Amino acid sequence: MDIKAAMKEKAEAARAASQQLGILPTGIKNQALLAMADALEKRAALILSANEQDLEEARQKGLRRSYLDRLMLNETRIANMAEGLRQTAALPDPVCQGDYSTIRPNGLEIRRVRVPIGVIGIIYEARPNVTADAAGLCLKSGNAVILRGGSEAIRSNTAISSLLSKAAYKAGIPEGALQFVEFTDREAVDVMTHLSGLLDVIIPRGGAGLIHHIVEHSSVPVIQTGTGVCHTFVDDSADQDMAVRIAVNAKTSHPSVCNAMETLLVHENIANVFLPRVSQALREKKVELRGCDRSRAICPEMKAAEEEDWSAEYGDLILSVRVVHDLDEAIAHINRYNTGHSETIVTENLAHAHRFQREVDAAAVYVNASTRFTDGFEFGFGAEIGISTQKLHARGPMGLSELTSTKYLIYGEGQIRE
Amino acid sequence: MDIKAAMKEKAEAARAASQQLGILPTGIKNQALLAMADALEKRAALILSANEQDLEEARQKGLRRSYLDRLMLNETRIANMAEGLRQTAALPDPVCQGDYSTIRPNGLEIRRVRVPIGVIGIIYEARPNVTADAAGLCLKSGNAVILRGGSEAIRSNTAISSLLSKAAYKAGIPEGALQFVEFTDREAVDVMTHLSGLLDVIIPRGGAGLIHHIVEHSSVPVIQTGTGVCHTFVDDSADQDMAVRIAVNAKTSHPSVCNAMETLLVHENIANVFLPRVSQALREKKVELRGCDRSRAICPEMKAAEEEDWSAEYGDLILSVRVVHDLDEAIAHINRYNTGHSETIVTENLAHAHRFQREVDAAAVYVNASTRFTDGFEFGFGAEIGISTQKLHARGPMGLSELTSTKYLIYGEGQIRE
Repeated sequence: MDIKAAMKEKAEAARAASQQLGILPTGIKNQALLAMADALEKRAALILSANEQDLEEARQKGLRRSYLDRLMLNETRIANMAEGLRQTAALPDPVCQGDYSTIRPNGLEIRRVRVPIGVIGIIYEARPNVTADAAGLCLKSGNAVILRGGSEAIRSNTAISSLLSKAAYKAGIPEGALQFVEFTDREAVDVMTHLSGLLDVIIPRGGAGLIHHIVEHSSVPVIQTGTGVCHTFVDDSADQDMAVRIAVNAKTSHPSVCNAMETLLVHENIANVFLPRVSQALREKKVELRGCDRSRAICPEMKAAEEEDWSAEYGDLILSVRVVHDLDEAIAHINRYNTGHSETIVTENLAHAHRFQREVDAAAVYVNASTRFTDGFEFGFGAEIGISTQKLHARGPMGLSELTSTKYLIYGEGQIRE
Repeated sequence: MDIKAAMKEKAEAARAASQQLGILPTGIKNQALLAMADALEKRAALILSANEQDLEEARQKGLRRSYLDRLMLNETRIANMAEGLRQTAALPDPVCQGDYSTIRPNGLEIRRVRVPIGVIGIIYEARPNVTADAAGLCLKSGNAVILRGGSEAIRSNTAISSLLSKAAYKAGIPEGALQFVEFTDREAVDVMTHLSGLLDVIIPRGGAGLIHHIVEHSSVPVIQTGTGVCHTFVDDSADQDMAVRIAVNAKTSHPSVCNAMETLLVHENIANVFLPRVSQALREKKVELRGCDRSRAICPEMKAAEEEDWSAEYGDLILSVRVVHDLDEAIAHINRYNTGHSETIVTENLAHAHRFQREVDAAAVYVNASTRFTDGFEFGFGAEIGISTQKLHARGPMGLSELTSTKYLIYGEGQIRE
């Protein structure tokens, strides 16, 4: 069977299963998630052996260290996957949650409740933990899921998904609800992004290249996640000790994640004093600084920033630095170069804080805090499928609620419209 | 200048204006809407003369009567457009409305508020009133708008949009926020649907052909609206008087709209009694009936339904009729042929009502009421931009809230992430 026919078959099976899954009692879904967690831990040896083969091949291909780290599994990481599934089981079921209810003058009772979206496609890259995390979130929210992981993790993902689906079906999840794509060719992605009518949405998780390719070519609706060119603006009224702490945290606490800072903007009135301080603190953490001309006039140790630095998502210990004339220039710079993820201002000026929050166009806009807090757990929503950087459907951390749609339920007693 | 360059210029102007418009005080937006309403009424003669030319050309082209009726304006219809703008002015401003607020254990205060989407494209067909309705809803929700109406209404739409934008800009709406596309070629639609990065969403309003073309080809996200293959299922426990009233109302009160019924499903246990009754009532209203074999065995006056009748949106006094074995078959038929708009069951059986509402996949699922109630005013939301039949972003009547996105605002006191 060719890839196209095989993919269509998977999608049709997922679609059929989704109708049952959408009305499955919460208790069964939770039991399934717990059984899936147990299966991962009990059969950890199987997963680790598959993962060792993936790693060996990746090493032979000469893939870089950070890539190998994302691919690598161990007992702790498997325990974390299992723990993630258990936490998802403990979250409230979004299905049937009501968010609007009214009675109309003609007596019609109208309620709006959350319902599953249907069939969700996840296209991701190196991290095998996405297989378990995404499966858990989709099933809990009543959605069937089609998982297409990266070719380098194929053995790990196959082992994990096969354990998960066996455990899930045994616990009462409708057969077919959890589909894993074993095809590693790029063609599988292209087929998947054209299964309109069978897939309701595709959520790509990975680098900007993957996401851009899918957004441009998919005829299935896409939710963009995870690209983060995040800024910190240090206003002239800032508490400078706080600004140094926030800048160091936003850049260095986990440089490879999407909510890490990539560009530091500094008000010109304090640049002479603040830039040397923050530069020293960042260089102590081994951060490479790339500055604008004005920054380098103050801190000659910085490299020169090129135009492409302002839109770079380094994901590494590199930071671009720019001196700006005022709040307006800071906001204009951010709205021009950002990806709509997370931005922060450090200021003691109420009017500036207010304007920054109103005028900066991003999913999360902070005052006096590190951008690193933009995630589902830190916001109090629990596990997330990604951070949406688009404006339609969902923006910011996407938890269980964001994996649902709504439906109006209307009760009447024979009402007709005049 | 070619169409592509001209469209890009319009979109860039709209984008620039949208940044000002997004933070404009409600009072100014409302004053602008009232001024726009006044302008339409004061200059009605100008609009009517442009409309007369459109009508004359349409008559010469031999366009059918229902089309001419949609195109035609008169004093009353212009007054209705003005009244729509005044009603929109009276609705609450969705911008800055909060729907989530919390304080985290680390002291971070997190709020989620509504923000405009940005730039909205509306592509529509014959009705010139969409020009005023859509402009009003987009501006009130803080969005810039690019309007592309049908070629047959070009003179009417040009007159209306020119009056609207003059009045709006004079009242303080940022120049450029209201763009009208004067190009009547299909190319303008194709260029518009590829302005990714400048347009945030396109909402097509019109026939299934237009909507399908845009969904398939647009690289800008699309919200599908308005296709309605709506069903009424008459259960064996139904109050049959009520069922006749609902069926007649759902089919005949306004056959050309998307919430009108297109297919009637009847439980086999009552078909012998109910079908002749409903058939007579519908034929008195001049409805042509197209029945399945079992329906025709009972009511030989019906024409034979073909397979394509089950997915037809007649928009006319035509109804397909099918006898079903039970509730399961009714639900299966609906989920196979419907467009996700509005469905209703007439029943006295609580379990059947509950299952129908849970299992039927549509934006609005009714018990014992006509499907004709699915619209913004009837649901209590006020004017709407369309009825979304998709699951992402918005489902059902799309009012001002559905024309917004959200943003997280986070206040800290120097919090950093460990």
